[in-house]
Amino acid sequence: MKISQIGEFDLIDLIERRIFSKDKRILVNIGDDAAVIKPSKDKLLIFTTDTLMEKVHFDLRYSSFVQIGWKAMAANLSDIAAMGGLPKFALVTIGLPVSISVENVISIYDGMNEVAKRYKCKIIGGDTLFSPEGIFISIALLGEVEKKFLVKRRGAKKGDLICVTGDLGEAQAGLEFLRRYPRKKPALVKKHLTPFPRVHEARTLVKNLRISSMIDISDGLSSELFHLTEENDLGAIIYEEKIPISPNCTKAGDLLKRSPLLWALSSGEEYELLFTIKKKELAKLEKIKEKVKVSVIGEMLEKKEGIFLMERSGKKKKLKKTGFTHF
Amino acid sequence: MKISQIGEFDLIDLIERRIFSKDKRILVNIGDDAAVIKPSKDKLLIFTTDTLMEKVHFDLRYSSFVQIGWKAMAANLSDIAAMGGLPKFALVTIGLPVSISVENVISIYDGMNEVAKRYKCKIIGGDTLFSPEGIFISIALLGEVEKKFLVKRRGAKKGDLICVTGDLGEAQAGLEFLRRYPRKKPALVKKHLTPFPRVHEARTLVKNLRISSMIDISDGLSSELFHLTEENDLGAIIYEEKIPISPNCTKAGDLLKRSPLLWALSSGEEYELLFTIKKKELAKLEKIKEKVKVSVIGEMLEKKEGIFLMERSGKKKKLKKTGFTHF
Repeated sequence: MKISQIGEFDLIDLIERRIFSKDKRILVNIGDDAAVIKPSKDKLLIFTTDTLMEKVHFDLRYSSFVQIGWKAMAANLSDIAAMGGLPKFALVTIGLPVSISVENVISIYDGMNEVAKRYKCKIIGGDTLFSPEGIFISIALLGEVEKKFLVKRRGAKKGDLICVTGDLGEAQAGLEFLRRYPRKKPALVKKHLTPFPRVHEARTLVKNLRISSMIDISDGLSSELFHLTEENDLGAIIYEEKIPISPNCTKAGDLLKRSPLLWALSSGEEYELLFTIKKKELAKLEKIKEKVKVSVIGEMLEKKEGIFLMERSGKKKKLKKTGFTHF
Repeated sequence: MKISQIGEFDLIDLIERRIFSKDKRILVNIGDDAAVIKPSKDKLLIFTTDTLMEKVHFDLRYSSFVQIGWKAMAANLSDIAAMGGLPKFALVTIGLPVSISVENVISIYDGMNEVAKRYKCKIIGGDTLFSPEGIFISIALLGEVEKKFLVKRRGAKKGDLICVTGDLGEAQAGLEFLRRYPRKKPALVKKHLTPFPRVHEARTLVKNLRISSMIDISDGLSSELFHLTEENDLGAIIYEEKIPISPNCTKAGDLLKRSPLLWALSSGEEYELLFTIKKKELAKLEKIKEKVKVSVIGEMLEKKEGIFLMERSGKKKKLKKTGFTHF
């Protein structure tokens, strides 16, 4: 059934029943002018928003409705992870063309809810509206963090080690694979379609190490490294041989005749974490590797030294801000 | 200059510098993965979001860029007012076509900031992205309210008096006036273009009266009255002669040959407050009228009695949910 057949208010009712969840901290839930919640006494609030837009961030030829919902929520959860915190409450705004079916709208919410629940994050309200040209999903998220665990982009010093969680490049590799082979769905494409925000990994990190700066990789490693260096007035060097690239990504590179290294440098929506630590934290980092996949990929330098990639060949190459930009 | 010429990151820098504001409660401001704020110990958090979309909620033939920014922010501030609270922190997401100029983007932010500042609300972050078809502005707002001042949609009882702030109908009258006479800008059109959210009025009300339920009029009086009655399992009667309609609105009705009463019943984006009080609060309400324009327009009934408008003629008419719907 098309949403135009059931009307705005019945659609909202349907969504509300679907995503409604109780929590003793939620005093006013979906269905009022605003949601009302009790803040935690000893924690700081993290407040973030992120939007996915059809034809800009996703393509319904490659993604299901569940997957676009998942991804929109994951992008927001990742921002909370990047501050060292835990996601708590979400407001969801969805712009919908009138031609979309009720079932597909419900699927978008199911996808959001599925990934949100894994991190105990609850959807407590939002807005649906008509969008003349394609779907968009805009989520505002509230998270919490203990003051001692808060990590910002600013805080890195010269000599700090540059680290990343997980493997890089798969999100972009998966997208390019789907564009070439839209019907095949190997493991590789999961990171593009249903990425896992590194919430648990971030918590393990902030609880066990002194993280001097952190950012999530939403626009590609290069671009995020540029953000970190700019924010901290530093330079950086990273080593090609240390950048973690999965065997699946390497295989896809062979198949598609593309460079897995370039993918790793420019893969947007990766949602891994890029962070820095003091060198003396290295022993603790080694211990964490039992729980979280982490790689040390380089070191922060003085600003005047620039931002470099040391190739396997030993050649030092100026790194470019090759992340994705909107305009 | 077009935004495509300066690029996403420089545009963001420009916006950040423009709207940046300090506050000892803001620990992490614009420019990180998320904003971080200290919650108030003794207050509840109000969390809301609202979106304006070009061609759906505004038309650039009638509204300036400053005005659409203003209106988008006002809609959100109004949601906080409807809960009895004070707005505090906003995240702003703007979808932009590549053809828009940097100056016009800045004007949108100026409009948002202008109305936000009046209520001490600060923009602390957000997102800009490419929107293939027209501008949209989605704002997520955090407000605060003392537990004792929190007002919900639910809480009204049979016999409670139905009240509204201000005058009704002008928002719709203004829009229709602009459609007919796009170049004339009488006082009337202000309520459509730059509405004032009833934040101060709401605070005066919750501090001086026991408000049993409240909602802001964003979809028209009829529609909001239906929301209130549904939420409270009640019926209602309102009296035509008591509905406050300004002389300007009446004049516009004569000019455009439209019914000011129908405008008052169906005028969206009015941002006045519709609320209920126990009859015994009436004396206190009379006192408040020195500070806030308030009118008693009817009374909550039992559900089975239905929802009626008593016309001047003495005829009882079933009220229709004539508010604006999206699908």
